[in-house]
Amino acid sequence: MKLTVIGLGLIGGSMAIDLKKCKFATEIIGVDNQPEHADEAQKLGIVDRLADFETGVKAADLVLLALPVDQIIALLPRVLDLISPSTTVADVGSTKRQVVASIANHSLRGNFVATHPMAGTENSGPSAAIPKLFAGKLTIVCDHEQSRPQHLALVEKMYQSLGMSTAYMSSDEQDHTTAFVSHLPHAAAFALANAVLAKEERSIIFDLASGGFQSTVRLAKSSPEMWTPIFRQNRDYVVEAVTAYIHHLKEFKEALKNDNGEQLFQLILEANKIRTVLSGENTSMTKNEETIVKLYTKK
Amino acid sequence: MKLTVIGLGLIGGSMAIDLKKCKFATEIIGVDNQPEHADEAQKLGIVDRLADFETGVKAADLVLLALPVDQIIALLPRVLDLISPSTTVADVGSTKRQVVASIANHSLRGNFVATHPMAGTENSGPSAAIPKLFAGKLTIVCDHEQSRPQHLALVEKMYQSLGMSTAYMSSDEQDHTTAFVSHLPHAAAFALANAVLAKEERSIIFDLASGGFQSTVRLAKSSPEMWTPIFRQNRDYVVEAVTAYIHHLKEFKEALKNDNGEQLFQLILEANKIRTVLSGENTSMTKNEETIVKLYTKK
Repeated sequence: MKLTVIGLGLIGGSMAIDLKKCKFATEIIGVDNQPEHADEAQKLGIVDRLADFETGVKAADLVLLALPVDQIIALLPRVLDLISPSTTVADVGSTKRQVVASIANHSLRGNFVATHPMAGTENSGPSAAIPKLFAGKLTIVCDHEQSRPQHLALVEKMYQSLGMSTAYMSSDEQDHTTAFVSHLPHAAAFALANAVLAKEERSIIFDLASGGFQSTVRLAKSSPEMWTPIFRQNRDYVVEAVTAYIHHLKEFKEALKNDNGEQLFQLILEANKIRTVLSGENTSMTKNEETIVKLYTKK
Repeated sequence: MKLTVIGLGLIGGSMAIDLKKCKFATEIIGVDNQPEHADEAQKLGIVDRLADFETGVKAADLVLLALPVDQIIALLPRVLDLISPSTTVADVGSTKRQVVASIANHSLRGNFVATHPMAGTENSGPSAAIPKLFAGKLTIVCDHEQSRPQHLALVEKMYQSLGMSTAYMSSDEQDHTTAFVSHLPHAAAFALANAVLAKEERSIIFDLASGGFQSTVRLAKSSPEMWTPIFRQNRDYVVEAVTAYIHHLKEFKEALKNDNGEQLFQLILEANKIRTVLSGENTSMTKNEETIVKLYTKK
């Protein structure tokens, strides 16, 4: 199976590494419009060979778009124009409504599978690509009823071979949920970094930043090239999420201003519930199969 | 040297483990008003023996108060009432102005050293105590000119034996800086957890929470018993920090509402500077000695 990966950064590079290793792909063709990224990916052995956009797309059984979401929208219609009727196309962007809208009426819409593998680090570029980035994580497949069964099956098989489980949602549901669980934490970290950088001497931050601060602002290291288009494409839901977050911060601030110890204690106690939620202790859905069944049933 | 640790939780327990192992203390006496914590600490071998408050304080060369900051304020004057003129007392609380104010006029004020070791995890209780929690981290010593030289030296030696470096600040400076670098990240995490818990189904959070969300909300697991009094004692500065944070979030939200891609890009780029700040790349102060010299000189 020939896999063409367009965009050889953290996500595309990490997928290429594992998909070659597990033999899902027999040949990996890399496409990247930044020559230094393309060269680096080849030197690191992430791809078998490089190609230009058109050659890469035409040579593939499966085309994977691993680009910032604004570039996905720009390129996806052109990819569908170039492929044969038997080629599968998938993207891995963090937003989905605008991506699926961009090819809604394309004659080969059914060849496309819209996905969002929920994994990453704060680093970017081919040198950030690492093995097993996706193992044990979850991928969201959106509007799967609009993909033809063969193309859906191939993309599911790809994620399975990466060790991922799969959840199925509408693009709208994915964008809303992701706004809260992924985009908001990034916005929160960017604003936290800026608030602290604006107020404190940098040497003091360096000296005093213990593990707590470091983990909270880790996402603030994420690249503007990737995140600006994500926020813009998911604007309504991210605005909703940030508004809700500001509301909760104001509630905390008011309790503090009023020196209301009981309310502060309750707000913290409520927040503590995230511990059992994240450990899965308060959900029966400990098996991925159940998750998939549940999310399937929902539609 | 006999060390009495009052409060056998994460901080007191972790200090006891290392201070015994490195032979700074020959005997560690544990005091905890929660019998189950005291028993657990003894069973885990964190302390050599248990004692009641008065016996523990009177038997010690050095008394360490490792309690929530409201309890430190309640007990510190009583500790100074009980000790001999040669006994040293230190606390490890996260706030300092109210602590030093509580014994400002005590005849044995000079026996007390106000400190804040900048280390911790989101867990609590004796079972959360771990070796080497403090190694390589920094401790803040506050208003050190009000401690007598012998008592200051013993406490500095204790932190040195834990592998920590030391910075010197006024209580006011420590409370202000800590509000931004430690208390604000906790408030941000508590509010983020509450915003997401209020909006999303808990099973969805569990399924979709990738590493990014988990690291950002990690601090939201911290205990209300510890954090409510910290926020209250540092109320003015934490309100200032949360207000600044809300300002930066609103700036982000406005840029997003206006679909101002250039401004969003700049805000993220600015936030990215935290990467070099945290790695120490943009400061010459890579050696702890220089830090200490600089902070000493400041006073």
